[in-house]
Amino acid sequence: MSRALSAPEKVSGDTRAKVSEAVEATGYTINQAARSLRMREARTILVAIPNMGNPFYSTIMDAVVGEAAERGYGVLVANRLGNDPTQWLRDYFSSNRADGLLLFDASLELGHLPEPPRQRGALPLVLSCDEIIDGGFNLVTTDNRAAAERATRHLIELGHTRIGQIGGRQVHQFPNERTLGFQDAMRKAGLTTRPDWYFPGDHTMACGIRAADSYLALEDRPTALFCANDESMIGFLSRSRAHGIECPRDISLIGFDDISIAENYWPPLTTMRQPRHELGRVATATLLDILDGTTRPNQGLHVILPSQLIIRGSTAACSSHRKAVGQ
Amino acid sequence: MSRALSAPEKVSGDTRAKVSEAVEATGYTINQAARSLRMREARTILVAIPNMGNPFYSTIMDAVVGEAAERGYGVLVANRLGNDPTQWLRDYFSSNRADGLLLFDASLELGHLPEPPRQRGALPLVLSCDEIIDGGFNLVTTDNRAAAERATRHLIELGHTRIGQIGGRQVHQFPNERTLGFQDAMRKAGLTTRPDWYFPGDHTMACGIRAADSYLALEDRPTALFCANDESMIGFLSRSRAHGIECPRDISLIGFDDISIAENYWPPLTTMRQPRHELGRVATATLLDILDGTTRPNQGLHVILPSQLIIRGSTAACSSHRKAVGQ
Repeated sequence: MSRALSAPEKVSGDTRAKVSEAVEATGYTINQAARSLRMREARTILVAIPNMGNPFYSTIMDAVVGEAAERGYGVLVANRLGNDPTQWLRDYFSSNRADGLLLFDASLELGHLPEPPRQRGALPLVLSCDEIIDGGFNLVTTDNRAAAERATRHLIELGHTRIGQIGGRQVHQFPNERTLGFQDAMRKAGLTTRPDWYFPGDHTMACGIRAADSYLALEDRPTALFCANDESMIGFLSRSRAHGIECPRDISLIGFDDISIAENYWPPLTTMRQPRHELGRVATATLLDILDGTTRPNQGLHVILPSQLIIRGSTAACSSHRKAVGQ
Repeated sequence: MSRALSAPEKVSGDTRAKVSEAVEATGYTINQAARSLRMREARTILVAIPNMGNPFYSTIMDAVVGEAAERGYGVLVANRLGNDPTQWLRDYFSSNRADGLLLFDASLELGHLPEPPRQRGALPLVLSCDEIIDGGFNLVTTDNRAAAERATRHLIELGHTRIGQIGGRQVHQFPNERTLGFQDAMRKAGLTTRPDWYFPGDHTMACGIRAADSYLALEDRPTALFCANDESMIGFLSRSRAHGIECPRDISLIGFDDISIAENYWPPLTTMRQPRHELGRVATATLLDILDGTTRPNQGLHVILPSQLIIRGSTAACSSHRKAVGQ
């Protein structure tokens, strides 16, 4: 595990303000050092996760619950961020049902913030996977930008020059980091990033199916795609195969996450493995360190866990490249 | 949704005693009707789930959290049943952190029950997916036995007569129900269930890989398999394909669950779809009805939700049958 401390990166002040307001709106103004024993008695953390049904997050949750249990904490689940997040934040913390918040989704929809922000609170909060950006919160993520650059370089090293992308939900920061990493690798290799080879997505199999339909409609097609995650890649594979496209003969694909199915899909997925269990474990430990008083909240600590390139059957040397070098 | 009331089915008295003891050991003796407002203020349910990282359970959890949130309840997660379940049950309920228990795993490992059972408690408890059997608890399950019979009949209707099985963990009741359904269909069709075509399993992809190795080593192979779940089927498909076995040309496979990947696997999985979201929602509603006083606990209510046969690409007419009828 690599630990890196870094200053929080800059992002839109709008996002920052919204998140700060959400936290402030809870009225959670109790100083950490002065937290009473009565407060600590909840010994429960609240976990907010975008979609528990997604296998990426469910493995993380498993690690969160395990780490919390080892340190004597219970885990409350909140995964309906859309329903007025300030309300549930206020409910949980004003009733002392939870001592701290582990947040896996920075895309809070705060359009109907019910009242103006009050005094800046010291809600013990750790953000993981996603990033809120310049919020000063303690952060545990994978190395999204560097990992995306590595993934794209793998395609380039196989001789691909015509490389497209299935994107992620831009309301999150992590797909944007990955797009930056993709662009880094393309620029360093002197390759052109073509807008008509960017297929928008939202991390679902359905978006991969839509991307395949768009790809199939192209006259001039890329030979490789960097996919926002494994599920969108699987959707693409499923739909394109039904139309006679064979991977990796006709197109190389690399994903992100290494979900449990990846090794047993056909072809087995080449992907960037996120340390999912470790993400859940370290994020939980970071929050519990705050609750136990050994770390201070909101210090802008950023723990970055490295992803790993897993090469399997969905990437191969570019066939035009093979021809060019006489293989 | 079909609701059936049925008397709890008989099973080993040993299992029943263990579970009753676990519940009794919590010392949870407060009468439901007399529950104080103070008790109700937790407005939290405890959910015990075997493995949150498994996509089958994670979808259920998503439904549990959604239903609970709609009725103003929080959800505490406990998924480490192995670590002395009586201890965590006692901790949660003695500290009034949870009002009721939603249990998705009847395979409690109660070997180290720390003290003899006390007075029979009236812990509000709903059991789902798995069954505890003659325990008198309210139960929400799918129609495991009938669904397994339907799945097997699908293979028989395709002309298969040489049908094997990938089994599930026998510490649970639901795989045993499915084996009974498999045997029902075989017996009604006058077919022989061969012990060497039963591949033991535990619902993982790894067990499907082991089953494929056993299958490949056979001289006399079945032409179809009824698999305990989709993940074991995927493991089998992955390994057997690597050894030149094509599905459905060489073998037909039917699974159970219809996990999200099933439609986008290759071949797309024929499977019995469990109403996972509905299982989570109804189990939660049943528990909250107890907490709200509209249903009494431990009345032996059994809600059975029907599974659905989803025919996709992994099953086909038996090739020897095709030859016999001249296709």
